[in-house]
Amino acid sequence: MSVEPMSIEGGHLIAGESVSGEGTLFGQNPDSGDWLDPHFAEATSADIDLAVDAAQKVHQSRAAGEADDRARLLEAAAARIDEIGAAITERGVKETGLPEGRFEAERGRTCNQMRLFASVLRDGIFREPIIETALPDRAPVPRPDLRRRMRALGPVAVFGASNFPLAFGIAGGDTASAWAAGCPVIAKGHPAHPGVCELIGRALQEAVRDSGLPDGMFSLLQGESHSVGQQLVMHPGIAAVAFTGSRSGGMSLWKMATEREVPVPVFAEMGSLNPVFVLPDAMAKRCDQIATAIAASVRLGVGQFCTCPGLVVTVSDANSAEFRGLLSEALCSDPAGTMLNQGIHGGYAKMLEKLESRDGVQLVRRGPVTEGFCDARAALFSVAGSRFIADPELQAEVFGPSTLLVECSNTDEMVEVAGCLEGQLTATVQATADELQQLPGLLDLLEDCAGRMLFTGMPTGGEVGEAMHHGGPWPATTDSRWTSVGSGAIARFIRPVCWQDFPDALLPAELRSDADGSRRLDGCWQDSGFR
Amino acid sequence: MSVEPMSIEGGHLIAGESVSGEGTLFGQNPDSGDWLDPHFAEATSADIDLAVDAAQKVHQSRAAGEADDRARLLEAAAARIDEIGAAITERGVKETGLPEGRFEAERGRTCNQMRLFASVLRDGIFREPIIETALPDRAPVPRPDLRRRMRALGPVAVFGASNFPLAFGIAGGDTASAWAAGCPVIAKGHPAHPGVCELIGRALQEAVRDSGLPDGMFSLLQGESHSVGQQLVMHPGIAAVAFTGSRSGGMSLWKMATEREVPVPVFAEMGSLNPVFVLPDAMAKRCDQIATAIAASVRLGVGQFCTCPGLVVTVSDANSAEFRGLLSEALCSDPAGTMLNQGIHGGYAKMLEKLESRDGVQLVRRGPVTEGFCDARAALFSVAGSRFIADPELQAEVFGPSTLLVECSNTDEMVEVAGCLEGQLTATVQATADELQQLPGLLDLLEDCAGRMLFTGMPTGGEVGEAMHHGGPWPATTDSRWTSVGSGAIARFIRPVCWQDFPDALLPAELRSDADGSRRLDGCWQDSGFR
Repeated sequence: MSVEPMSIEGGHLIAGESVSGEGTLFGQNPDSGDWLDPHFAEATSADIDLAVDAAQKVHQSRAAGEADDRARLLEAAAARIDEIGAAITERGVKETGLPEGRFEAERGRTCNQMRLFASVLRDGIFREPIIETALPDRAPVPRPDLRRRMRALGPVAVFGASNFPLAFGIAGGDTASAWAAGCPVIAKGHPAHPGVCELIGRALQEAVRDSGLPDGMFSLLQGESHSVGQQLVMHPGIAAVAFTGSRSGGMSLWKMATEREVPVPVFAEMGSLNPVFVLPDAMAKRCDQIATAIAASVRLGVGQFCTCPGLVVTVSDANSAEFRGLLSEALCSDPAGTMLNQGIHGGYAKMLEKLESRDGVQLVRRGPVTEGFCDARAALFSVAGSRFIADPELQAEVFGPSTLLVECSNTDEMVEVAGCLEGQLTATVQATADELQQLPGLLDLLEDCAGRMLFTGMPTGGEVGEAMHHGGPWPATTDSRWTSVGSGAIARFIRPVCWQDFPDALLPAELRSDADGSRRLDGCWQDSGFR
Repeated sequence: MSVEPMSIEGGHLIAGESVSGEGTLFGQNPDSGDWLDPHFAEATSADIDLAVDAAQKVHQSRAAGEADDRARLLEAAAARIDEIGAAITERGVKETGLPEGRFEAERGRTCNQMRLFASVLRDGIFREPIIETALPDRAPVPRPDLRRRMRALGPVAVFGASNFPLAFGIAGGDTASAWAAGCPVIAKGHPAHPGVCELIGRALQEAVRDSGLPDGMFSLLQGESHSVGQQLVMHPGIAAVAFTGSRSGGMSLWKMATEREVPVPVFAEMGSLNPVFVLPDAMAKRCDQIATAIAASVRLGVGQFCTCPGLVVTVSDANSAEFRGLLSEALCSDPAGTMLNQGIHGGYAKMLEKLESRDGVQLVRRGPVTEGFCDARAALFSVAGSRFIADPELQAEVFGPSTLLVECSNTDEMVEVAGCLEGQLTATVQATADELQQLPGLLDLLEDCAGRMLFTGMPTGGEVGEAMHHGGPWPATTDSRWTSVGSGAIARFIRPVCWQDFPDALLPAELRSDADGSRRLDGCWQDSGFR
């Protein structure tokens, strides 16, 4: 075993305290298979109670601060994470096999996300009060004074992803948006990168302190058994759950939450096939460029992106044989890299086997064999459009650098393929504007199955902004009305409360007549106090 | 049997057609017990398929119109309902026992609601596009062009309430908001007022025709067995469900929807206790007025409002005996009126019996016995604060003109009562501002259990506006983040879709660069086209 930095102790971080415990979880280097010190504790029910109770206390006592306080919290978190960037990268590379550069870039995205949410809080977007003043003389009945504000839902349980230890990890969009909403966070550390979780957790713990908010705003619970997550989701003090990961994991948390005495919302982002439709004219014009771009997108992060294009739909014509050759060449010539961990590596192999065994599916090419413990071999499969339409099993996500080429006999069949797709995070068209205008049904079908549609680009690398939507129809996510990326993500964790006829002195600050900030007043937008 | 107007035929209304069928359902006059002609059909699976398929076709082919078309639809619906107001009132009085004046007033509210939603559509609120234009030179990566619009979820199944045949019925807020969102509606007729449903259904069917939208925008399916509702909710073509009614009904539809292959959102509004907290100073100053106001609110609509105050919390002091006397006098002196139907009448009797049997609960007074078939007797019960805190069964809603007086030994115990309440649609405080400021914990607890809070008013009679929130924490509703009253209700039935890098010609109209209407552009609000 290699020696790890002193700062990783293997315990939990509960409401400002380091809490040690028993456990047998170790990080593992996916490149060498070596186990990494130290061992990590497994959260007990008592640990979970402690964390949730502290969070609930913050929530109930309105101690999560005003928007400004939480903007400072988010900025402090970004600063603290940047401060220990080198340590995170060092440990992260060992635990995940991801390259150094990726950690640096992902840290940038993570901290920018925190800062974006801070600015959203300062702008007041998504939390604007709506006020309708009394009309005592209205007939037949007077109108009361109604003031609607957004209240935080309460403690949020965050389950980060293995594939983005930073941007979708315990300091990712879910934690940032829950905090922005005013919700304390209890993060469940990912067992595939417990050391990174602890380092980031410490940064978040420090940030809570820096901003003067109560310690209960954040806890990190470690553990490898499903039971930690289950107990957390079932805890009566948890008000909402955010999850990024596999379909089986997300479904199981969602199902559990529906069985609580008081069910709570679970936003689970469970990945998807992210189909790319390559239309004939585009293929004729940009055959090489499209094949290269798809291969690069599939290979990005060793295929371990939730927006990885796992399906490429084409029409068999004069150019399609060339396209297939170029795609297989670009995808499978070089070694694909090290996967995140043994579990994902094993799952990838199993899914490839399953895919190859389906009727009508042909293996076009596999990538070269290499020596690393969790090395992936890229793969290209093909199947006829009619077979794809007939076999829903072909829509199972293969998490890794593999894609399925669906070859249709004509554009009508291509449209039919679009019509039988399950819910997707993204859907992409590689086409000329002219040929798409001849085929309007295709865009309609894609819009009805996807949360984001792309023209000519690639789905990997989603922008974090206010126009972004990362939430496709079931089973891509549990509720297509919410996003887990971009500032819209905050809305998942707030609920409206209407205050009727209260005197100013008793109203929450933002609802008072002389409050600053933008709001809607008697049907018009307004920038500041109105009396 | 009495003879009914010719216009009620007893069939379903499916996508513009009248469809007859077999069935044994009759309306019943709750005053006399008489059955009312004609008998009504029970929807078959074929009827359900027909209705949902037509709705899905409208949705998928983008035929539900632009915002303006749907604004015209809503206005046409209001006009058509007003046109047959007399017939609705005539049949309604017979089927529900509600007085004529109530039907007239409720029709006003229903049609105003339709017109409000039309104006919201014209203003563009809730559907404003968010656009972030491309930044091709941004480092380290360029920003793509991102445009987010709201897309209708798809066909919505609407289950109206028995207690508001118009305002929360098949032409109520759920249908109005689903239509405003651009969703076709399949309404399930309420078996307690099938004749009213048919009349309104015909008006809605005409309105669809008037506005030039496709017939599939609306269907009405009649039936008395649970199986019609079940099949509708389980139909793969249904994208969302809206329900107003009992907890058992709402829970059962919600549960079913979670078991679908593709689960869909169910917004169920299931009523609540709507506690009224009467604080000592207010009681000392306005003892008589408060008692009278509570009694009137409990008796309104024979206690059959989802916002009926079923719980009154006081502190035992020098005035509380007088308050109790005044309340029992105002509540129980006069006959309470006819309940909506046999089922509700029987349920009320059963719940009173159950309540009276609980440890520590005392019957203070019952109202007079009268002769009508479904006549209700008002009831006042009392219980000590400590018993209420110890017995969660006392939080079961009694649907009818009854309230439970919880007498606390001091304000601390009153706060403790607030802390153990389940989710509520509303919570009311009768207090002076001064005494509430001495007791800040009370408002915090009430805000965390309720969707709307009132100061000195009464919870019955919710305003339909944009600041209204009618959606309390579970079990008052299935999701506290949405409202079923007011213009916010539209948001339940839309989902964001992000269009990335599409040329103008391929974008939906509202996302094009030269589109009219307000939108958010690169972080600023804007009123019209920007190029």
